[in-house]
Amino acid sequence: MRPSGRAIDALRPVFIQPGFAHHAEGSALIRMGGTEVLCAATIETRVPSFLRGKGQGWVTAEYGMLPRATHNRGQREAAKGKQTGRTQEIQRLIARALRAVVDLKALGEISVTVDCDVLNADGGTRCAAITGAWVALRLALEKLVRNGTLPALPIKGQVAAISCGLTDDGPVLDLDYREDSTASADANFVLTADGGIVEIQGTAEKDPFTEAQFNTLMRLARTGTAELFRIQTAIVEEALKA
Amino acid sequence: MRPSGRAIDALRPVFIQPGFAHHAEGSALIRMGGTEVLCAATIETRVPSFLRGKGQGWVTAEYGMLPRATHNRGQREAAKGKQTGRTQEIQRLIARALRAVVDLKALGEISVTVDCDVLNADGGTRCAAITGAWVALRLALEKLVRNGTLPALPIKGQVAAISCGLTDDGPVLDLDYREDSTASADANFVLTADGGIVEIQGTAEKDPFTEAQFNTLMRLARTGTAELFRIQTAIVEEALKA
Amino acid sequence: MRPSGRAIDALRPVFIQPGFAHHAEGSALIRMGGTEVLCAATIETRVPSFLRGKGQGWVTAEYGMLPRATHNRGQREAAKGKQTGRTQEIQRLIARALRAVVDLKALGEISVTVDCDVLNADGGTRCAAITGAWVALRLALEKLVRNGTLPALPIKGQVAAISCGLTDDGPVLDLDYREDSTASADANFVLTADGGIVEIQGTAEKDPFTEAQFNTLMRLARTGTAELFRIQTAIVEEALKA
Amino acid sequence: MRPSGRAIDALRPVFIQPGFAHHAEGSALIRMGGTEVLCAATIETRVPSFLRGKGQGWVTAEYGMLPRATHNRGQREAAKGKQTGRTQEIQRLIARALRAVVDLKALGEISVTVDCDVLNADGGTRCAAITGAWVALRLALEKLVRNGTLPALPIKGQVAAISCGLTDDGPVLDLDYREDSTASADANFVLTADGGIVEIQGTAEKDPFTEAQFNTLMRLARTGTAELFRIQTAIVEEALKA
Amino acid sequence: MRPSGRAIDALRPVFIQPGFAHHAEGSALIRMGGTEVLCAATIETRVPSFLRGKGQGWVTAEYGMLPRATHNRGQREAAKGKQTGRTQEIQRLIARALRAVVDLKALGEISVTVDCDVLNADGGTRCAAITGAWVALRLALEKLVRNGTLPALPIKGQVAAISCGLTDDGPVLDLDYREDSTASADANFVLTADGGIVEIQGTAEKDPFTEAQFNTLMRLARTGTAELFRIQTAIVEEALKA
Amino acid sequence: MRPSGRAIDALRPVFIQPGFAHHAEGSALIRMGGTEVLCAATIETRVPSFLRGKGQGWVTAEYGMLPRATHNRGQREAAKGKQTGRTQEIQRLIARALRAVVDLKALGEISVTVDCDVLNADGGTRCAAITGAWVALRLALEKLVRNGTLPALPIKGQVAAISCGLTDDGPVLDLDYREDSTASADANFVLTADGGIVEIQGTAEKDPFTEAQFNTLMRLARTGTAELFRIQTAIVEEALKA
Repeated sequence: MRPSGRAIDALRPVFIQPGFAHHAEGSALIRMGGTEVLCAATIETRVPSFLRGKGQGWVTAEYGMLPRATHNRGQREAAKGKQTGRTQEIQRLIARALRAVVDLKALGEISVTVDCDVLNADGGTRCAAITGAWVALRLALEKLVRNGTLPALPIKGQVAAISCGLTDDGPVLDLDYREDSTASADANFVLTADGGIVEIQGTAEKDPFTEAQFNTLMRLARTGTAELFRIQTAIVEEALKA
Repeated sequence: MRPSGRAIDALRPVFIQPGFAHHAEGSALIRMGGTEVLCAATIETRVPSFLRGKGQGWVTAEYGMLPRATHNRGQREAAKGKQTGRTQEIQRLIARALRAVVDLKALGEISVTVDCDVLNADGGTRCAAITGAWVALRLALEKLVRNGTLPALPIKGQVAAISCGLTDDGPVLDLDYREDSTASADANFVLTADGGIVEIQGTAEKDPFTEAQFNTLMRLARTGTAELFRIQTAIVEEALKA
Repeated sequence: MRPSGRAIDALRPVFIQPGFAHHAEGSALIRMGGTEVLCAATIETRVPSFLRGKGQGWVTAEYGMLPRATHNRGQREAAKGKQTGRTQEIQRLIARALRAVVDLKALGEISVTVDCDVLNADGGTRCAAITGAWVALRLALEKLVRNGTLPALPIKGQVAAISCGLTDDGPVLDLDYREDSTASADANFVLTADGGIVEIQGTAEKDPFTEAQFNTLMRLARTGTAELFRIQTAIVEEALKA
Repeated sequence: MRPSGRAIDALRPVFIQPGFAHHAEGSALIRMGGTEVLCAATIETRVPSFLRGKGQGWVTAEYGMLPRATHNRGQREAAKGKQTGRTQEIQRLIARALRAVVDLKALGEISVTVDCDVLNADGGTRCAAITGAWVALRLALEKLVRNGTLPALPIKGQVAAISCGLTDDGPVLDLDYREDSTASADANFVLTADGGIVEIQGTAEKDPFTEAQFNTLMRLARTGTAELFRIQTAIVEEALKA
Repeated sequence: MRPSGRAIDALRPVFIQPGFAHHAEGSALIRMGGTEVLCAATIETRVPSFLRGKGQGWVTAEYGMLPRATHNRGQREAAKGKQTGRTQEIQRLIARALRAVVDLKALGEISVTVDCDVLNADGGTRCAAITGAWVALRLALEKLVRNGTLPALPIKGQVAAISCGLTDDGPVLDLDYREDSTASADANFVLTADGGIVEIQGTAEKDPFTEAQFNTLMRLARTGTAELFRIQTAIVEEALKA
Repeated sequence: MRPSGRAIDALRPVFIQPGFAHHAEGSALIRMGGTEVLCAATIETRVPSFLRGKGQGWVTAEYGMLPRATHNRGQREAAKGKQTGRTQEIQRLIARALRAVVDLKALGEISVTVDCDVLNADGGTRCAAITGAWVALRLALEKLVRNGTLPALPIKGQVAAISCGLTDDGPVLDLDYREDSTASADANFVLTADGGIVEIQGTAEKDPFTEAQFNTLMRLARTGTAELFRIQTAIVEEALKA
C-alpha cells in the first residue's frame, strides 16, 4: 500500500552495530532502511563553564550529514563556514532527549558529547540519531562504571524516537524520504520506555491538522518505539557480554 | 496562586499597536505582560531563487533580541558574527506558522519577510512574535489588495501562538520568565482560529511528562488562543478603518 | 522653506522616554522626528582585560539598526555574520563621546555598555543615539550612587550631538533623511554643556566646502545642542523624582 | 619488529567496499588497518565559473574527519566555522592527484566532486583517501559511459598513494598512527600504475634527512602502490560485473 | 622642543617613491618619518552593482597593516577572519577623500581600487595613506589618458591629509606615535590644493577641547598640506617624464 | 634560451635588505627578480598552550600577499574573512622549514613568529619567503644572545629553498611566473647548508613525471641553494657588524 510496500504501522528494518567508531568510549552505527547514522559518545572529565563547580555533569550532541548522504550533494557545512538552522535545531533536540534520561548529578563533573553523523539519508535521520545515540551513551557510561569512575549507571530511562506523518495513505509510521517530502504533516515523537513523553514536534507542512489526527500519530509512535526499545536492549546486552 | 497572581488559565495583559515601524508595509508592536516584540512585514516583488518562475510567493521571518531585552545583557549576535541555534529555531518556526495560513499561489511572485525583534523579554517571546507577526502580515497584504496588486487577500486563516507549561502550580497558561525557567515541561501551540493545529512543540525540561498532562496543556492553549484571535481581529479592523 | 517646513535652525520635535528597557540599569527611548533610538545602559562589575587591575572603569557602546527601520529593508547584520563598517564607525563614536564625560578612575573597576538600537530611521541616528545614550548612562550611574556602590556620580559633563549640513536651502540644523541624502556636505558635532568640543566629523559628500561654511555649521550646532541639553536635564530630573 | 609486527615493506590489511554511499554516482569505503575513509563521487553537469565555455571538465575533492575518528575528540569544523589548514592542504592534494589521471577535455563540461570523509583514523588518511577516491571516481565515470553521456572513459591512468617514513625501525612502509607520531621524517607518494610520479611530499619532522634515505622511501612506496593497484583493479572489475 | 626635536609646525621628512608595486596601474610608497605606506591603484573596467548602467565610475580604497608594522605584533586580520572597526573606518575615509576630487561621470564605467598597506607605522598612517593614494590614483588615471581610454584626466583636484594634535608642547603638526599616544586631542584634516575642506575629524582623547584650539590645529594643517601638495606635484611630474 | 634569457641553472638576481621592518626583532626584505617578500621575526616570551610548562620554545610563520602584488588584483583575505588553502599551506611549510633548523629546547619558553608578506610577486614566493625568513629569524635570535636572554644561538642549521620545474626548455632552476604557469611539473626543495633535506614538494601539473626527471630537478636545487646559502651568510655577517 505504501510506496515501500510496508504496512501503515511497520518500521523499516532496523540494524544497530555497536563499536563502529574504534576510539569512542561508546558508539553505534544505526540503520533504519536506507538511513544510516554513526553515533559516537565521547567522555571528558570537564564541564562547560556555566556548570563549573556545581557538582553535576552535562550531555550534549552534535549532528552532521556527509555532503553526499543525500540524493543531490549538499554543500559541506565546514566549507560553508557555518551550520544550517536545521542542523542546529536537530543537535539541540538530540541533546535534550539524552539529558532527559541522564541523572546529571549522579554523573558528576563529567561531560558526554554524542556525535551523530549521517552517512546515508532516507528520511528520519534525527529520530535514528536519537535512538542510536542512546545506545552509544549507554555503552560509554557503562565504561565509567566498569573502571570504577562511577558507582552506578547515571541513567534514569531509555529513550528512542520515531517520526509519523499524514500521507496520501493516511497516518503512517516511520516515513522514508519519499513519504516525508510529500506528507501534509509530520511529527517526531521522543518517548521513554516507561511511557513518558520527552519531546513532541508536530508540524503542518501544508494545511493545519486536527487533534484527532495528531492522536493517531501518537498511537503509531507508541507502536514504533516499543519495537525500538526491544532492539536497543538486545544490542546493549549483547555488546556488554562481548 | 501563580507568582504573578494570575489564574491558571489567564493570559497576561495583551496590547497590540499597529504601525509602529513607520516604513514597513505592515507592522505591530505586541506586548504580553513584560514581553514586547516589534513585528515588521516587508513586501518585495521577487522570490528566493528556488521559487523563481514557479508563479508562487514566499513568506519568511527573522527573529532577534536586543542585547538588553533580558535580565542580564546577552552578546549581540551581529557582533558575535552568528545567530544562535535558538534564534534560528525560532525564526524557522515563525515562518512555518505564517506560511501555513497564506495561499502562496494566490500571492504570486511576491515575498514577505516579517522581522520580529524582541525589545523586552519576559517569557513567551516566540509565541508573541507569531501572534504579532500575523497582524503585521495581514496589514501588509491588505496594502497589496488596496493598491490593486492582488485581487483578494491571499490569506487562508488566522494564526496565533501561546505557551503552556507544568509548574509547581500545575498546568498553567502563558508562562512568564519566572515560571518558564522553573517549569518541568513546556509546550508551544500554534493554532488557527478555525481549530486547526499548525505546530506543537512540547519539551520535557526535567522529567518526561504524560499524555494526560499534555492534553491538559492543549486545552489551556485553546482557551488562550481564542482570546488572542479576538484581540488580533479587533486590532486589524481598527487599523484598517484608520 | 525646508522640505519639512522647519526653520534653518530648528530641531525636529524631540521626545525622550526613560525606562523603556525594563531590565536595563538605565535606558531611554529617544525620538527626533521620525528617528527613534532605544538606548539601554548595562552595568557590569568587570572590565576588559587590558584594564584589569588598573583601578579604573570603562564605557563602551554598541549600535544596531532593525532591518526595517529604513525605507527599504536592510539585511540583518546577525544573519550576514558581520557588522558593517558604518555600524562599527558609529559605535566607536558613541563610546568615545560618552567616555569624554565620564571619570573612569572614579568609576572604579566597573564597565558600562550602552546599546543603541535604531527602531525607526529618518536621518541623524548616530546623533540621537549619543544624546539618548547620555541619559541612559546618567540614570544607570545614579543607581550605583543610590545603592552605595559609588560615593558620587563619576560624570564630568553632559554630552549631546547634532548633525548640520549644506543643502539647497543653505546651511541647516538637524537634517532628516531627505535632506541628508542630497546634502553636499554634512557634519556631526558632539558637544558638552559647558562649551567643549568632544568630536567633530565634517565630510564633503560632493564638493569640498569652505572654512566659512564649516563655521556656520558649528554655530547651528551650538544652537541645537543648547536645546538638547535642556531636554536631557529635564528628563533626568523627572525620572529621578519618580 | 615494527610495533604492529608487520615487515618493513608490508601494507596493513586493505579492504575496499564499493557502493557504500547509496546515492553517490560512485563510492568506496576503504580500510587500511584501523583507518577507514568513505569516498563518494558526485557528477554534476556544470563546471566552475573559471572554466565555463572552455569545453572541459573539472575534478575536485573535499576532505573531512568525523570529530571522534581520532583518539581524542577533535572540534567539528562545521561548528568552528572553518576548515583547518591541514584539511585544506589534504583536499587540494587529493584533487590534484585525481586530475593528473583524468582527461579533462574528454570529460566535457562535467564536474566531479569526490568527498573523502574519515570515519576512523589510524594514520595515512590522506593516502587512503586518494586510493579510495580513484575507485569512486572510476565507478562514477563508468556510469557516464554506460548511460551514453560519454563515448569512452576519460581516464588516463590509475593512481594510488602510500606513506613511508623513517622510524626507530628504519625506513618503513605504510605508517600507522603510532609510527607516524614518532617518525623523524615521512613522505607521501602519489604514483601511477605505469610508473609515473604525480606528487611527492617529503617532510623532516625532526632532523633533515638524506637523499639516500629519501630514495629508500621511494623504493618502499613502489612496492606498496603495486599492491594497491592490484586491489583497486580487482574491486573495480568486481563492482562493474555486479 | 618636541620629542623629535621638530618645530611645532614642521612635517617629518617626506619621501614618495612611485612605481613600487610593479603590476599596479599606479603606485607610490610614501614615507613620513618612520611611517611607510605602500599605495597601489588598480583599474578595472566594471563598477559595483549599485552603479551598473549609470554611466559613471567609482573609486574605493582598502587599508591594511602588516602584523609587525607596529611596536608590538598585532594579530593578522586575515587570520582573525575580520577587519577591525579601525581598519574599516580608515578605508572608508581614504575612499571618500579620493572620490571628492574625482569626476566620476568623466571616469565612465571604470572602477579604481587603491590598496594602502602600512609596512611600518609611527603615527599618521591614515593621513600618509591619503597623500600617497592620490599620487597612485593620479598615475593610474594618466595611463587611461595615454592609452586613449579617456580623453582627459577625470580629476577635479589634489588632495592630501595631515594630523595635528594638542600635546604637552601645545598644538603641533604631524604627530608621530609617541606624541599621538599621549595627545589630549587630535584631528585629521583632508584638504584640497585650492583651499577646500574634504574631511575633518577632530576627537578629544581625554578632555573636550575649545573652538580656539581647534582653529589653531586647522592653521597648522594648512601649513602642512601646502608642503605635501608641493611634494606630490613634483613626484608626479617626475614620474610622468620617465 | 629561457624567456628571461637566463641559463638553465641560473638564479634570478637575489638581493636581501636586513632591518626593513623597523620594529621587528629581526627582518629582511628579499628580492628574487620581480618577487619581493618582507620577512619580519617577532620574539615573544610565551608559548602556545600545548607547549606550556614543557621548557621548550616554538617557531611559527604567517604568510600573506598584498592584493596588488600580482598581475591582477586579488581579493584581500582580511576583507574576505578567511585565508585561502594556498596561504595556509604555504605558512605551514615555512614554519616547518624553520623549526627543522632551530633547537626548540635551547630556545626555552620563547616563541618566534615570522611574518612573510609578499609585496611583489613573480613566481617562487614561498621559496623566497623561506630564504628570507631564515635571515630574519637568525637576526632576531642573535638579539636574544646579545642581551643575555640566551647563552648561545639555538640554531642547528641554515635553510633555504628554491623551486625547479619541467618547462618547454627542459628542467630549469628558479621559475618565474611565466615559466611557472606553463610548467608541466614543479618541485620546491627546502635544503640545509650541510646537505640535508627538510622538505620536498613535487607536483605534476599536467602529466606524471619520471624519477629521472625528479632527480635532475634535485641537482638543480642543490646548485641554487648553494648560492643562496652564500648570500644569506654574507648578509647576516654584514648586518651583525653594523
